[in-house]
Amino acid sequence: MTEAEYEGKAKILMTADRPEEVLVYYKDDATAGNGAKKATIEHKGALNARITERLFTLLAEAGVPTCLLGRRDERTLVCRRLDMIPIEVVLRNVLAGSLARRLGRPEGEVLPFPVVEFYLKDDPLGDPFLNEDHAVALGFATRQECDEMKALARQVNAVLTEFFARRGIRLVDFKLEFGRADGKVLLGDEISPDTCRLWDMKSGEKLDKDRFRRDLGGVGEAYQEVLNRVEG
Amino acid sequence: MTEAEYEGKAKILMTADRPEEVLVYYKDDATAGNGAKKATIEHKGALNARITERLFTLLAEAGVPTCLLGRRDERTLVCRRLDMIPIEVVLRNVLAGSLARRLGRPEGEVLPFPVVEFYLKDDPLGDPFLNEDHAVALGFATRQECDEMKALARQVNAVLTEFFARRGIRLVDFKLEFGRADGKVLLGDEISPDTCRLWDMKSGEKLDKDRFRRDLGGVGEAYQEVLNRVEG
Repeated sequence: MTEAEYEGKAKILMTADRPEEVLVYYKDDATAGNGAKKATIEHKGALNARITERLFTLLAEAGVPTCLLGRRDERTLVCRRLDMIPIEVVLRNVLAGSLARRLGRPEGEVLPFPVVEFYLKDDPLGDPFLNEDHAVALGFATRQECDEMKALARQVNAVLTEFFARRGIRLVDFKLEFGRADGKVLLGDEISPDTCRLWDMKSGEKLDKDRFRRDLGGVGEAYQEVLNRVEG
Repeated sequence: MTEAEYEGKAKILMTADRPEEVLVYYKDDATAGNGAKKATIEHKGALNARITERLFTLLAEAGVPTCLLGRRDERTLVCRRLDMIPIEVVLRNVLAGSLARRLGRPEGEVLPFPVVEFYLKDDPLGDPFLNEDHAVALGFATRQECDEMKALARQVNAVLTEFFARRGIRLVDFKLEFGRADGKVLLGDEISPDTCRLWDMKSGEKLDKDRFRRDLGGVGEAYQEVLNRVEG
């Protein structure tokens, strides 16, 4: 039995055999509104583990350094242990979610270039939006790490936008987390319908966590559909 | 009688004799909390007009391009007419106000370098915090204008921090607004205790609008004290 080191809202980090590795167990738990809304979505953990494995492998092939080393079972990935940077890096191709709300503009407006945002990963504070000066001045990341995270986010976007488009999915926006290992910045965490907005290109149907956030139903089915297309 | 073109919360813009100029009339009205709290502070308009005139003159001498052309009466400045950029540029030397609140940190923490922030000037939206990608992608300013505004904010900070320090005042943070004229970015709006946090270096006493926001009393007296020191 491996030991749980840290339990987050959607994943549990467990001690691996090697000290430089960590096991990432994907739970079926779903939360929204900073934990205000909670539910269990059957199979979500396994679906997100498989989607993340596929996308991280694709990104590694494209030259993006990631934490992924392999898979242990259907919902547990083996990852490189990272010193996590406490910033959520969001990249937006299309106006949606909190930014649309804050700017009083309708969802769906295509942005003229990919917009990158930083949020402090801090649940008690509600993950406040930061700019780069904040991130550096308050010691969350160095200026160079900020530049690397932004460049990697744009690289991830170029790869995934094209990958999803070939599968009939529009990559609206996504959230990344990064960590340090051996002085390098690597992609950590996950990329899944929990962390992306994915809209079907023909129907406009949402294939992501907004189905849960907005009580649209069919959450598990949408995640399964994303896996089918990602693996197809 | 000159014609009012636009009435803001603290100033009225009036038509000047020349089309490339505008008269800026400083009111005694004070508002806080995006207009939720309102009052009249006797002489505030005249005090802020004189403080702005002195500081803009100082900045122009230091090479910062400003809108100021002259004074018409005790509370009316003559300014170059600008095409205003709808962004409030905030520079912080010390953690205070909304940033301290959002980060859950105490006021007074000295930042390791001056932090610059952009806010969209939009009362109905509550002046949302933006990053540069937002400002550019949503068409509020060009990338070059963002760079110029940041550089000018840092230049203003260098000049005013030293100027206030010689007068026993710590420049904690301030808000600037910029506009375009003849393809150049110029400093517009005002610099006064309405738009700065100014702390007495010995006592720590607040000499700015926080006296009004936080019901500390002695608002007019504090503004008069700032004018005395600025002109002293």
